[in-house]
Amino acid sequence: MKLLVINPNISGDVTRLIESEARRSIRPGTELTMATAPFGVAYIETRAEAQIGGYAAMQVAAEHYAEHDAVVVAAFGDPGLAALREILPIPVVGMTESALVSACQRGNRFSVIAISQRIQAWYRETIAAYGFSERLASIRALDEPLAHIGRVQEDQGQRLIALAERAVQDDGADVLILAGAPLAGLARSVAARLPVPALDGVTCALRQAQAMVDLGASAPTAGSFAPPPEKPCQGLPEALARLVGRRTAEPVSTVG
Amino acid sequence: MKLLVINPNISGDVTRLIESEARRSIRPGTELTMATAPFGVAYIETRAEAQIGGYAAMQVAAEHYAEHDAVVVAAFGDPGLAALREILPIPVVGMTESALVSACQRGNRFSVIAISQRIQAWYRETIAAYGFSERLASIRALDEPLAHIGRVQEDQGQRLIALAERAVQDDGADVLILAGAPLAGLARSVAARLPVPALDGVTCALRQAQAMVDLGASAPTAGSFAPPPEKPCQGLPEALARLVGRRTAEPVSTVG
Amino acid sequence: MKLLVINPNISGDVTRLIESEARRSIRPGTELTMATAPFGVAYIETRAEAQIGGYAAMQVAAEHYAEHDAVVVAAFGDPGLAALREILPIPVVGMTESALVSACQRGNRFSVIAISQRIQAWYRETIAAYGFSERLASIRALDEPLAHIGRVQEDQGQRLIALAERAVQDDGADVLILAGAPLAGLARSVAARLPVPALDGVTCALRQAQAMVDLGASAPTAGSFAPPPEKPCQGLPEALARLVGRRTAEPVSTVG
Amino acid sequence: MKLLVINPNISGDVTRLIESEARRSIRPGTELTMATAPFGVAYIETRAEAQIGGYAAMQVAAEHYAEHDAVVVAAFGDPGLAALREILPIPVVGMTESALVSACQRGNRFSVIAISQRIQAWYRETIAAYGFSERLASIRALDEPLAHIGRVQEDQGQRLIALAERAVQDDGADVLILAGAPLAGLARSVAARLPVPALDGVTCALRQAQAMVDLGASAPTAGSFAPPPEKPCQGLPEALARLVGRRTAEPVSTVG
Amino acid sequence: MKLLVINPNISGDVTRLIESEARRSIRPGTELTMATAPFGVAYIETRAEAQIGGYAAMQVAAEHYAEHDAVVVAAFGDPGLAALREILPIPVVGMTESALVSACQRGNRFSVIAISQRIQAWYRETIAAYGFSERLASIRALDEPLAHIGRVQEDQGQRLIALAERAVQDDGADVLILAGAPLAGLARSVAARLPVPALDGVTCALRQAQAMVDLGASAPTAGSFAPPPEKPCQGLPEALARLVGRRTAEPVSTVG
Amino acid sequence: MKLLVINPNISGDVTRLIESEARRSIRPGTELTMATAPFGVAYIETRAEAQIGGYAAMQVAAEHYAEHDAVVVAAFGDPGLAALREILPIPVVGMTESALVSACQRGNRFSVIAISQRIQAWYRETIAAYGFSERLASIRALDEPLAHIGRVQEDQGQRLIALAERAVQDDGADVLILAGAPLAGLARSVAARLPVPALDGVTCALRQAQAMVDLGASAPTAGSFAPPPEKPCQGLPEALARLVGRRTAEPVSTVG
Repeated sequence: MKLLVINPNISGDVTRLIESEARRSIRPGTELTMATAPFGVAYIETRAEAQIGGYAAMQVAAEHYAEHDAVVVAAFGDPGLAALREILPIPVVGMTESALVSACQRGNRFSVIAISQRIQAWYRETIAAYGFSERLASIRALDEPLAHIGRVQEDQGQRLIALAERAVQDDGADVLILAGAPLAGLARSVAARLPVPALDGVTCALRQAQAMVDLGASAPTAGSFAPPPEKPCQGLPEALARLVGRRTAEPVSTVG
Repeated sequence: MKLLVINPNISGDVTRLIESEARRSIRPGTELTMATAPFGVAYIETRAEAQIGGYAAMQVAAEHYAEHDAVVVAAFGDPGLAALREILPIPVVGMTESALVSACQRGNRFSVIAISQRIQAWYRETIAAYGFSERLASIRALDEPLAHIGRVQEDQGQRLIALAERAVQDDGADVLILAGAPLAGLARSVAARLPVPALDGVTCALRQAQAMVDLGASAPTAGSFAPPPEKPCQGLPEALARLVGRRTAEPVSTVG
Repeated sequence: MKLLVINPNISGDVTRLIESEARRSIRPGTELTMATAPFGVAYIETRAEAQIGGYAAMQVAAEHYAEHDAVVVAAFGDPGLAALREILPIPVVGMTESALVSACQRGNRFSVIAISQRIQAWYRETIAAYGFSERLASIRALDEPLAHIGRVQEDQGQRLIALAERAVQDDGADVLILAGAPLAGLARSVAARLPVPALDGVTCALRQAQAMVDLGASAPTAGSFAPPPEKPCQGLPEALARLVGRRTAEPVSTVG
Repeated sequence: MKLLVINPNISGDVTRLIESEARRSIRPGTELTMATAPFGVAYIETRAEAQIGGYAAMQVAAEHYAEHDAVVVAAFGDPGLAALREILPIPVVGMTESALVSACQRGNRFSVIAISQRIQAWYRETIAAYGFSERLASIRALDEPLAHIGRVQEDQGQRLIALAERAVQDDGADVLILAGAPLAGLARSVAARLPVPALDGVTCALRQAQAMVDLGASAPTAGSFAPPPEKPCQGLPEALARLVGRRTAEPVSTVG
Repeated sequence: MKLLVINPNISGDVTRLIESEARRSIRPGTELTMATAPFGVAYIETRAEAQIGGYAAMQVAAEHYAEHDAVVVAAFGDPGLAALREILPIPVVGMTESALVSACQRGNRFSVIAISQRIQAWYRETIAAYGFSERLASIRALDEPLAHIGRVQEDQGQRLIALAERAVQDDGADVLILAGAPLAGLARSVAARLPVPALDGVTCALRQAQAMVDLGASAPTAGSFAPPPEKPCQGLPEALARLVGRRTAEPVSTVG
Repeated sequence: MKLLVINPNISGDVTRLIESEARRSIRPGTELTMATAPFGVAYIETRAEAQIGGYAAMQVAAEHYAEHDAVVVAAFGDPGLAALREILPIPVVGMTESALVSACQRGNRFSVIAISQRIQAWYRETIAAYGFSERLASIRALDEPLAHIGRVQEDQGQRLIALAERAVQDDGADVLILAGAPLAGLARSVAARLPVPALDGVTCALRQAQAMVDLGASAPTAGSFAPPPEKPCQGLPEALARLVGRRTAEPVSTVG
């Protein structure tokens, strides 16, 4: 099985962190292709940045998905996830969604531990859009500026653990989600110190990606995830245009 | 007052339709700047197309918003709306949201009349994301391929009216929303034949844009719609980079 | 355009406060008629008082709505709003609903700043009835008896600002609604000191009333906001009886 | 035990129907006082009529509640129920709420059988306000004008039964609520012909009123159902003024 | 009228406590049969224990329900309640559901006072399953191990009252539910010291059981509470097998 | 990896069907232990039967879970799932939950195809309890008595496919869940004829069980899924008593 893992941000450091944890989360015989967004921001905290990252993920996926069995969107918040599901004929998973469905299978309510105050609104809206708000015990977040996005765990490890403990004690979390690609691997390293199951978004995403490929369900030809109707397009990278635009060479007559 | 009206699609025909109805919806002294997406698809029906259109709207807005008092995202489904609200210091309205808040002030439950079957899922999710699902009586949509996106009203006028009548009769709609920029002006022309208030997305958006400017509330410096935190970025058009990226010239050290 | 602004309470002081802010919120050419409830209480804090104020608003509206283009119910909590929408052939707006739809267009979650502890339950239920509970970050309220309802702002200004700041800081409000007619004008005077958009119910209501008139949508003849079916009535003021009762002079035969 | 049963409508015929069924629903030793609204409409179908009926119920209750142990609001839709609960020191029950809580104890989902198409929106909103929307399988209603509100059962009995059967068969109702005071007694007379428990609003209300009195819980002195704070009032009937207004003779200084 | 009261736990002490309060909650002419689970745990705090207690309640009910008019499941959390409703031809009430429907008729929002921290999750899920989450102001619970389940009130009375007061003051409860059979009678003894109506689960259940019998609605023959379809069964106590299994003597052919 | 697969029903035929599909859904190195409930009914359609099946699953699991890495509850509706998660130190998955989380990763809305009309209420409540109601497009079910539970697919295959097609066409399903252990394998055999991904509960459960084991998260020692507090118990099978009761030999002093 071959998986395409897309970091929708421009941070090579974070891509390496994702790759390191992803390689621990695959079975023998699963291969990974790592890709980093060619444009965008260093890490996504806002709806605006997610809008950019989602489009970047679409471009990367369109160009590279061929010969892969599934795609992993490797940023918590899942930028572009629904869009990719529509245009690609293979399963697509996201870190948030994978972590949520895993958490639901290990307990009832979960808390999300996040790397910045600002990121909380976007996370909350993502979780709400998936319909999991009722099970969200809390989001708890670091409240200091991040000196270096690739070293959050080293710099803030103790504070992250303290937030996790409060989520269990005060908020009633049955499960913890240590959220965001920059925290990849933290759950594994601190699991023994936490009183409830602690989940890592990257690990969950890779495990769910493999499970989705294993399921072997076919791609839809009807419903709202069938390929978008063909129509005129312009200015899109060629690989993407093949997936969302008119697949013929007809001139775009409706553009004035 | 000066408003920037963005068509997040590439269809010049539709931009002209929007402009025509928009000009009927402004007060003396309000000026309009019309803009069409430089890349994307002819009209948005899917999440994937909205992801593209939202990014296109961000680029257009970043380049042109200066010296305007508000921005109108002129596609039903509001691609990029939340993103624009974060990065721009002026009010931003969208056709769907404007129509929903107008409908709520004219009745309890509303139906949306749409131009294609496929577009319904995206509309439903947009309405749900705004929290208005409980008030949605139904979405009813044309079920034939559109011959020409700029001539839907002429080609399908009678069918659209029939759908509207069923929404009132069978679904319990107190208000009708004739949705999608390609239907701009239809509500006005058929209002007399419909038994409940019929709303036009373009008209609602322009009226709400003017109301938001009139309110005069200041831009946020805190909360989740304050400007995104500065951070490294790359590959973004310069105008957009100024709004979402690091505003200094420092090298992007975290990118490997 | 001519707007009828109804204070559903008996407080002339508050009517004057409303009028003062309302006059700042209209365009050239918009005229106002102010009306105060002929019976009821000094200010509404409870469901019981709202039941009375709503009926008073119906009587005032029935008597005075003719030759107006829209009606504004000028008490937060919108007593009688849905009732008025059914019986009047012109748009009717309320302070709460107008503030909510405005807040939604300036951010995702809002907090309401209120003048008394007791008033919170009624506000919460009103917001829930409109379907906006998910977007309510908090209600924060003064906790001292009000010495004089017409001087709340002078007496409690600093405390109100402190509540607003906590709503942003601790509750995650993107927008603030300074609620209640007795606070009319406060948002304007303190806006510069608050870190997120601050909305005034009176201003929002006047702006939305004008927007609704501008929309020009016709009155319903079907659906649940069409005029109530004719039926026997008794004991109602004549103007109101014409709107809700049997419009003929037939005797009320079903009354024993 | 002594119960005050208020018909918030002016229909003496319907009051007699209510009384007849109420007398079958009380235990030995329970006494009834029947009261009919002195003003209002013949039967309530709309939010506007409910606003009037609720205020009429407040006046009737204020005048007559003394020496009673509980009050029954005897119109489906419960006009004025929450208001009465705030101002009276004794339990107050309503036909809708009583029927809903009874239905919940006999099954999971229920359908409401109603006497007119128009009445459905108001019923739906009442049920939603109580938080029971998820358990509402359907509302099914007669679709012809009512010739005489006091003879609905005789005139429309067969059609009502047919609606009930479809609610069970097609909508998945576990329980039926035959709604509206004009249908008092119908559930009893047709129960044997219906395949699921059929509830009568009047019967449910009387049974719940007696259960609430039996519970013997004390009246609140805190929370949102404590008596409203004292404040100036004017123009209210004396008995009502004693419950909602300032209880002293001080002049109402805030009224200009 | 004859009621079967089932303690789904093995605690004879608690059964006696329930009986004592139940006898105060019945009318002349109502008779009680008390029954204690023959297997299970001392008191239910978890989903696992409720699963066991629910099955025990089914066995007890199947054996003893004959010649009774209704069944009361006398543990907060209502183990087995829905199951019993399906298999028995008489009304079945539970302590939680009865308390919730009573609380709703005395106020809008309620708090639950509970005997252990662990029990909260199960209570919250039970309340959510009934659809009352929106009205739950809070659950507040003792946080010390219980020395003796039959003496909680004596040992922890003051702490329970303190929790109740905080629920009113800080959480906005209009009504208090003192939850769990081990607290039977507490509401009565401390009512005078609490500022809002305080409800006892046992009392509520007995009052609702009598009200349900009084209603006289017939048992369903359709819908999801009709008797389960006949089918092969094995290993069930004979009385229970008669209610859920094949009622004929045919061999169970599908079992390999 | 070693998985314990429990059929909570007594049908050996169905256990064999489950095993056959389960063996197709495991990776090399995964071993299965199959177990059938020693008491209960042939197949679960109701809440009552699920209450029994859940307790049977607890007994089977308690006796056999040792030396396994995860447990699979192999009946749609997941009888006993939450209870097992509390008492076992290893992951536990259920067919419904596994199918729901899989469906969510392949589309937005799903329909469930079920084997009997009666089973729908229980399925709907299970899906609601997990919080997935918003994503449920429909449940469609066979409406004839089942001649033989082990031969549903052969007897009703065409009808099941027709129901699936209507769910996509009329209800807007993006994904289909062919529900119930008796349908194990059907999704695989008819996938090519269905226009959207079709999921099999057994396959989903096995894939998720393996993914949960792979995640390697530790068992909780806090939160609502920590082992139940120790307490007196009686009458439980010894293996189960060790998991839910007092683990010492002290006499059960609270039982009278």
